[in-house]
Amino acid sequence: MTPIRLAANQYGKAENRVVRVTRDTDRHDLVDLNVTSQLRGDFDAAFLEGDNAHVVATDTQKNTIFAFAREPIGSPEEFLVSLADHFTSEFAWVSGGRWAAEEYGWSRIGDHDHSFYRSAPETRTAVVVRDGDATTLISGFHGLTVMKTTQSGFVGYPRDRYTTLPETEDRILATDVSTRWRYAADAVEGLDFDATYDSIKATIMETFTKGYSKALQQTLHDMAAAVIEAHDVVDEIKFSCPNKHHFLSDLSPFGLDNPGVVFYAADRPYGLIEATFQREGTPTKDAAWVGIAGFC
Amino acid sequence: MTPIRLAANQYGKAENRVVRVTRDTDRHDLVDLNVTSQLRGDFDAAFLEGDNAHVVATDTQKNTIFAFAREPIGSPEEFLVSLADHFTSEFAWVSGGRWAAEEYGWSRIGDHDHSFYRSAPETRTAVVVRDGDATTLISGFHGLTVMKTTQSGFVGYPRDRYTTLPETEDRILATDVSTRWRYAADAVEGLDFDATYDSIKATIMETFTKGYSKALQQTLHDMAAAVIEAHDVVDEIKFSCPNKHHFLSDLSPFGLDNPGVVFYAADRPYGLIEATFQREGTPTKDAAWVGIAGFC
Amino acid sequence: MTPIRLAANQYGKAENRVVRVTRDTDRHDLVDLNVTSQLRGDFDAAFLEGDNAHVVATDTQKNTIFAFAREPIGSPEEFLVSLADHFTSEFAWVSGGRWAAEEYGWSRIGDHDHSFYRSAPETRTAVVVRDGDATTLISGFHGLTVMKTTQSGFVGYPRDRYTTLPETEDRILATDVSTRWRYAADAVEGLDFDATYDSIKATIMETFTKGYSKALQQTLHDMAAAVIEAHDVVDEIKFSCPNKHHFLSDLSPFGLDNPGVVFYAADRPYGLIEATFQREGTPTKDAAWVGIAGFC
Amino acid sequence: MTPIRLAANQYGKAENRVVRVTRDTDRHDLVDLNVTSQLRGDFDAAFLEGDNAHVVATDTQKNTIFAFAREPIGSPEEFLVSLADHFTSEFAWVSGGRWAAEEYGWSRIGDHDHSFYRSAPETRTAVVVRDGDATTLISGFHGLTVMKTTQSGFVGYPRDRYTTLPETEDRILATDVSTRWRYAADAVEGLDFDATYDSIKATIMETFTKGYSKALQQTLHDMAAAVIEAHDVVDEIKFSCPNKHHFLSDLSPFGLDNPGVVFYAADRPYGLIEATFQREGTPTKDAAWVGIAGFC
Repeated sequence: MTPIRLAANQYGKAENRVVRVTRDTDRHDLVDLNVTSQLRGDFDAAFLEGDNAHVVATDTQKNTIFAFAREPIGSPEEFLVSLADHFTSEFAWVSGGRWAAEEYGWSRIGDHDHSFYRSAPETRTAVVVRDGDATTLISGFHGLTVMKTTQSGFVGYPRDRYTTLPETEDRILATDVSTRWRYAADAVEGLDFDATYDSIKATIMETFTKGYSKALQQTLHDMAAAVIEAHDVVDEIKFSCPNKHHFLSDLSPFGLDNPGVVFYAADRPYGLIEATFQREGTPTKDAAWVGIAGFC
Repeated sequence: MTPIRLAANQYGKAENRVVRVTRDTDRHDLVDLNVTSQLRGDFDAAFLEGDNAHVVATDTQKNTIFAFAREPIGSPEEFLVSLADHFTSEFAWVSGGRWAAEEYGWSRIGDHDHSFYRSAPETRTAVVVRDGDATTLISGFHGLTVMKTTQSGFVGYPRDRYTTLPETEDRILATDVSTRWRYAADAVEGLDFDATYDSIKATIMETFTKGYSKALQQTLHDMAAAVIEAHDVVDEIKFSCPNKHHFLSDLSPFGLDNPGVVFYAADRPYGLIEATFQREGTPTKDAAWVGIAGFC
Repeated sequence: MTPIRLAANQYGKAENRVVRVTRDTDRHDLVDLNVTSQLRGDFDAAFLEGDNAHVVATDTQKNTIFAFAREPIGSPEEFLVSLADHFTSEFAWVSGGRWAAEEYGWSRIGDHDHSFYRSAPETRTAVVVRDGDATTLISGFHGLTVMKTTQSGFVGYPRDRYTTLPETEDRILATDVSTRWRYAADAVEGLDFDATYDSIKATIMETFTKGYSKALQQTLHDMAAAVIEAHDVVDEIKFSCPNKHHFLSDLSPFGLDNPGVVFYAADRPYGLIEATFQREGTPTKDAAWVGIAGFC
Repeated sequence: MTPIRLAANQYGKAENRVVRVTRDTDRHDLVDLNVTSQLRGDFDAAFLEGDNAHVVATDTQKNTIFAFAREPIGSPEEFLVSLADHFTSEFAWVSGGRWAAEEYGWSRIGDHDHSFYRSAPETRTAVVVRDGDATTLISGFHGLTVMKTTQSGFVGYPRDRYTTLPETEDRILATDVSTRWRYAADAVEGLDFDATYDSIKATIMETFTKGYSKALQQTLHDMAAAVIEAHDVVDEIKFSCPNKHHFLSDLSPFGLDNPGVVFYAADRPYGLIEATFQREGTPTKDAAWVGIAGFC
């Protein structure tokens, strides 16, 4: 038999849909999470021989998530760290893992005490990667669609035999912002993750509106710079953003002009710009990013 | 050959993604629609012999939609009626049709003049059915997820040999509101469809919060009654609403109580309640509803 | 209060995912269904007063589905009829309902006794509508994507000021076949639904390949005629089929010809052709079709 | 301003839907691809200043893909390599990139010359990563759902206070196989990628059927070992496979036994096992895997 080597591996229970209601008073609150737990460590015997002595059942991981939700969840980041602490201390052979959550945002209907609607356009994300003593926290969001109806252009690009695109100094710029940022390791203790999330999201949205965009690349850079400038706790931020093309409809066959009024919103293909920005002088943590879809 | 008869049929171009920007001043506005046009009339020769003399090309229908968007769109309902007027007057053999739109809601980022984000949790819908001289307008929305964390129960239901569900007087009630309402034929001339939409949506959300719900059926009835009471222009309203189960997590194996705090949000199966409510003394218009998914 | 009237309504448990394994011998078989049960009858008190005395819990409906799956399922159609029989006989106020199933098709890996892979490209559907003594069976499938790379054209259509489409006598014709057919009421007793399904699907696919298509309308008619001709038990068949556009890529800017070789497969918009064909001389059953998405 | 550093980045045109018809004779063939092109190199000026002098337009990348499809595509892998060769040689500042494709599998209807249906349950994938002189090829597939109705169990796992799962020696094992394998750098020249794909897929499916599975981990290992044993050209293979739970339905409240007959197929949560297997003595190429979703 050809010798093969078991390299990187992880396993667990994915997409545990936990809703926690705080009902200490008549004015309720709720947290709505989709939690995934994956363990890393010494699981070779399961792969090689089907020996499960080390395999903390994925069902047990699920139970633990729900049991831990009996206590206040705090932020998704804190909840995931508590899971990481538990599994790595409870089982000697669990040397680390990856815990991830999506959070769905709700608002009160009116200012009602116990009635809510799902309001957030974006999905908030959090990932905790534990490797021995090292813990990396990566937060972010996806699904926030933004558009500028002017103050965007694209000129000055190289032309070869396959280039037909005309230059434009006034176009629609639209994208679904998908971003993840990594916190400095020494910044996470006691950090208010919810407030930081709100602030970073606001910074990104506000920067998007500013000035003239010569390229989506430039816009992403400016958003990254603004986030890192305003948030000491962020060492790195990544974007994976489609250029959602809005093509000016050609109405000339019908005797009509179209001065930037009617657009066709195309599905596919789309531009795709992915970039990583890091605070100068800080260490990289590339291993923590492995397996996050759509980021280079 | 067995004789067959061509019965109901329609055809057209589906899902034309039109974005229209109003840029008369520096303060832009935008409308984001997904428009479908389908014609009805005398198209037998195309089916029977492949004779396309009557077949207004679906590509022509698409062009017409984009050309008509050169003028202000007004509401989705008005835009669809203008399409219905055009096709039924332009082509003698087109006796009617079905025009439908989804609208996606955007808000300004901050109060910026030309920067927006897609904010509406729900998708607004509009359908215009034209049959000869008769026009029916059906508006609605779907995708609005709401939840009450208390003041809901389910008791008093019949028990047979397959019944295991325990009664409860305190549960989570959650649903994705999917609703369509039909305007009275004589009410649509000059109606402010956008304001009416906002008012109906607000009525539905506000009614959802009120009182104790003994069954999702009761809640749907109350929402329907409130809409019809407050809006003279609405003759009929339908709901198709899942009962999105949130099961109390059993934490007793872990020595924990769970007084309505931790829930598991299930995907499938789900309850599904569908109902039609009509203003007393008004005529039915069942034919206009054919082909709308998920409504009985 | 404005008087409103509760009109058509139904409720139940949707999307019960039932997998049944036949394991009488070492050579297993499996049936994979997604079953929805919805009851109709006298449920007014639940809507009007929250009185659940008639509300057979959706949880009870779910339990019944799983309990009934303990016996051999036969075809999806037979399984749904057994549910209809049960609910309408067990509860006096249940006068009818709608039971629906999707079936996912599996094949053996090799000819292995108990290992399978999900092989069917299409999803098979079945609907049973019961109204008092009358039962209507509608079967079908969706998701079968077919393509002809030649022997299709589109010419002779009317031209107006919005028409820009050039005629073509050689194009790609592609669609996702979505179809439902209704069985004659007196044909269903003892019918082999599985064999009939296979035969109708084969008839549709074979007819698609034949001859030159002057319009997708013509192709749908020919498929309908072939099904009704070859299957005495079918009284009616509907199609809802997109014209999945494959646009010839314009390579002339690059000094290349493109004689029907390179195509761009577009997502949206798409043509959409919907039509109903009925066996001459048979009664219509329009009420049974209400609520089926995407069919006129 | 806080100094930030532009780290890893790439950009291009995603999801170009190319269908190529071979019609040299009356017996046509077709290839159906979804192609993404992303360039890496010196693009700093675009991010920092909006200077697009190096930004090969994503529209140009799209045009190039369609133009290159004018020639026979061969396998997806060969097509992507030709794109990599082109972009890195045409533009001095393009030092590498990532080109990816999905392929959708079609079969002839009957043995018809020019009529096809989309038949493959799985989506085939190919990725080419070019970094200077080094090229890495990763192929794979996803969406192949397999099931064993017996010969699977799960026992011997550790129990803690959160463990409630009972042991079982007879359960359903089902998963969606998602896998990617990396070819040895010196093996790709002249390789028949289509035949190799078919052989690897067959090896995986056949291995799935064999013997008793003590854990999904063991099954993944055995599939990896079989692939690497039988295919000298493969140096590494990864799996990311859900454990699609099929829970035995508890029919005892209804007086029924359930000896492995009726199962409830759950959606979420699900187990998730991810693992990498490498041929002993071969080099790792971790950088080429970055950004592939769902693999550790």
